[in-house]
Amino acid sequence: MEPGRIHLRGHPVQDLIGRTGFAQMIWLMVTGETIEGARAALFEAALVAAVDHGPQAPSIAAARMAATCGVGLQSAMATGLNMLGNVHGGAGEQAVALYHGVANAGPEALADTLDTWQAEHGRYLPGFGHRFHTPADPRALRLLELVDDATATGAVSGTYAAAARAIEAHLAAKRGAPVPMNIDGATAVIYAELDCPAPLARGFFCLSRSVGLLAHSWEQMQQGGRNKGPTPPAYLWTYDGE
Amino acid sequence: MEPGRIHLRGHPVQDLIGRTGFAQMIWLMVTGETIEGARAALFEAALVAAVDHGPQAPSIAAARMAATCGVGLQSAMATGLNMLGNVHGGAGEQAVALYHGVANAGPEALADTLDTWQAEHGRYLPGFGHRFHTPADPRALRLLELVDDATATGAVSGTYAAAARAIEAHLAAKRGAPVPMNIDGATAVIYAELDCPAPLARGFFCLSRSVGLLAHSWEQMQQGGRNKGPTPPAYLWTYDGE
Amino acid sequence: MEPGRIHLRGHPVQDLIGRTGFAQMIWLMVTGETIEGARAALFEAALVAAVDHGPQAPSIAAARMAATCGVGLQSAMATGLNMLGNVHGGAGEQAVALYHGVANAGPEALADTLDTWQAEHGRYLPGFGHRFHTPADPRALRLLELVDDATATGAVSGTYAAAARAIEAHLAAKRGAPVPMNIDGATAVIYAELDCPAPLARGFFCLSRSVGLLAHSWEQMQQGGRNKGPTPPAYLWTYDGE
Amino acid sequence: MEPGRIHLRGHPVQDLIGRTGFAQMIWLMVTGETIEGARAALFEAALVAAVDHGPQAPSIAAARMAATCGVGLQSAMATGLNMLGNVHGGAGEQAVALYHGVANAGPEALADTLDTWQAEHGRYLPGFGHRFHTPADPRALRLLELVDDATATGAVSGTYAAAARAIEAHLAAKRGAPVPMNIDGATAVIYAELDCPAPLARGFFCLSRSVGLLAHSWEQMQQGGRNKGPTPPAYLWTYDGE
Repeated sequence: MEPGRIHLRGHPVQDLIGRTGFAQMIWLMVTGETIEGARAALFEAALVAAVDHGPQAPSIAAARMAATCGVGLQSAMATGLNMLGNVHGGAGEQAVALYHGVANAGPEALADTLDTWQAEHGRYLPGFGHRFHTPADPRALRLLELVDDATATGAVSGTYAAAARAIEAHLAAKRGAPVPMNIDGATAVIYAELDCPAPLARGFFCLSRSVGLLAHSWEQMQQGGRNKGPTPPAYLWTYDGE
Repeated sequence: MEPGRIHLRGHPVQDLIGRTGFAQMIWLMVTGETIEGARAALFEAALVAAVDHGPQAPSIAAARMAATCGVGLQSAMATGLNMLGNVHGGAGEQAVALYHGVANAGPEALADTLDTWQAEHGRYLPGFGHRFHTPADPRALRLLELVDDATATGAVSGTYAAAARAIEAHLAAKRGAPVPMNIDGATAVIYAELDCPAPLARGFFCLSRSVGLLAHSWEQMQQGGRNKGPTPPAYLWTYDGE
Repeated sequence: MEPGRIHLRGHPVQDLIGRTGFAQMIWLMVTGETIEGARAALFEAALVAAVDHGPQAPSIAAARMAATCGVGLQSAMATGLNMLGNVHGGAGEQAVALYHGVANAGPEALADTLDTWQAEHGRYLPGFGHRFHTPADPRALRLLELVDDATATGAVSGTYAAAARAIEAHLAAKRGAPVPMNIDGATAVIYAELDCPAPLARGFFCLSRSVGLLAHSWEQMQQGGRNKGPTPPAYLWTYDGE
Repeated sequence: MEPGRIHLRGHPVQDLIGRTGFAQMIWLMVTGETIEGARAALFEAALVAAVDHGPQAPSIAAARMAATCGVGLQSAMATGLNMLGNVHGGAGEQAVALYHGVANAGPEALADTLDTWQAEHGRYLPGFGHRFHTPADPRALRLLELVDDATATGAVSGTYAAAARAIEAHLAAKRGAPVPMNIDGATAVIYAELDCPAPLARGFFCLSRSVGLLAHSWEQMQQGGRNKGPTPPAYLWTYDGE
């Protein structure tokens, strides 16, 4: 950067403005590389799919509460963003790592790979299962359809879509009931197909969900209310002290 | 600070450790001055009184939610602290400013002063009224008792306790029912009596309530739970779009 | 939302994924309305233009520091987002309000309108002037060019571009030197042309700058470093106590 | 809690206010137990010792930057608190765990215990070494002196002070130069002596350092400044892209 001159990742900013889509700009800024065509479309679909899942998500609930407490819009959003930790925002990152492991080990080793993962990280396999959307999450179905299209044209390899479907089938057989791929599992397929380092699956989810954080914070600010939190009976905690 | 030498507000740190109470240390660090005796006791009482008011407060609720989302203890606490904005954490600061105005204007001008305040800032007078603790907040009663004791010995002037009680009496007469001083109103009396700039009433409240944030975040972490937010039916929001 | 069914602003999510751009999705989620064609392109250009302005911005600097302190990517991003307050992230919002005022008052009243604004809010007119980019910010030039193109085709009215240029000319004449429109002023032209409520100019800036927050946080995490902050000599603070 | 009645950990709040010190109140709220006499004095000393270590700490630097960006005092504090992650705020927690390990393994196994720790967690032993305070941190010397006094009277066992000193001696012998116990190592001795779960060492550090966060944020707000971050040349980052 010099006075009157701004280059982003080597590109003069005025050449990017009006020519580059926002999703492409995100990829460029974060990875340092350009993304085009079918690969750019897949990335954009992943960003679009994860923007919101309603006010029951703790991050969205907290952002809405914050908006009633007399803070700025940026603070309400930051309150929610800050909660996208390992459990609430990390499943995509973990799923990318899991797919890498499954794809590297090969199909014969699938059961062992999953057993090892669960022994190390706990019983929830990241990216699979949803307490609400059964038998299938409509976002996951649609995203995998797009990955299949891109695989057919050779834009991506399809390796990780296959790995994810193998996991899904294995879990269903084991439990005797569907354990469907969820939004984290499906977006992780895309991030893995795009050769994206696992931690960026979390980072991109944060950008995507920030849209929902803004939409809900703004809605709450317009609806007003002062200092609102959950009303009794409390929903979450128990106190067993004196 | 030099290698092997740390002075805080001009005091070698090793002379403070073990000799100065934590409340006194807070006052020293924030105001640059020492506080002793009855004045220190009043400050300590204000800090003790405001540590917690249960899990329904939005800041505490959000911190507990954050603790289920896979973030560190510091992030759970910061989530709640960040919500102590103008509405949820600012009443003490506003009440100090109100008491200054009422005390400066004198008793005859009380009604006018309050009318002006409400015209500028809205109908809620900061520091008075509680939707839950009627007819009186036990913390406020006790804190004012301590201010009276300190006034009797000349440690403080009692000016702002008188102002606050005049407001309380005025509101009760106007409404025909008690509008009792709440914790913000009572701690603001102490901060005003201690000649503390109004914004520090908010700052000290933040330190005090951080204790509750830690206690609740830690309790929730021990109780476990993954990714918990409010369960439907949603309590706070309405959606009237398409 | 029902099991297996997610509608966002009335649209089935599977119909949006793969068909709607991320920028369009942002507009839909936040405003509740669809945006298409030249208007969508303007919105996308505003989002693209503001993603980053280098590591000296305090929000970016803080995010990078946070990334060295052992927190998750989401917390590093939230650290920076939380700092986009009235001074660092609010200029776009203020500029939209200013343009509304200037456009409503009409060209003859321009000087009076600006004087009134400065009397109420201080000497900095939001959206104009840059300590670094003189005589012109390349992002602003390019964004206004796009607004002119959209005005020529009737996609927007051009009212607020005219208001902004009138302010710019007035300031230059008054000071005898250019006070060029900056990124906040130029994106505010777009948000005003799109009939966007002023607070959303801040909200959209938060989304845009979150891209830079992710890019820098991720870069810092890859570069490593432990617990890095500014090295002495301190650059920002002075201590004049004992 | 009932209308007009607030009990904290089983104690009526009005019985605590004016009778319980702030440090004791912190212990009660967080652990559920009372703390008295020499043990309370040790806890208070640990809280006092860690309040601040100057504006170069990234958390303090970020809080001061935030204070120039137009956010509330609570947000400036939260910005810094949120950065007390595993690297910047976690050393006390890690040191308590290390002391438990060393004390359980016994003196003969010291070298092995430390080697194992470093193999698992990296070369920095939490709680030892300081890039600035050589040969000794004055806070650590003073805190250990207080622990020794409390050990002499039987208030604590001295087990963990012995473990910490054994580690310090081992490191000095191995390196041929002092690797002195730092503030995290010394406060961890106290938290371990008080039978405090390791994660609370981090929690209590957060409360203590919040004092410095408030003091610095408030100082910066009084000094003013708009949107200040590090001035070029940048101190922390390098960019090696295009």
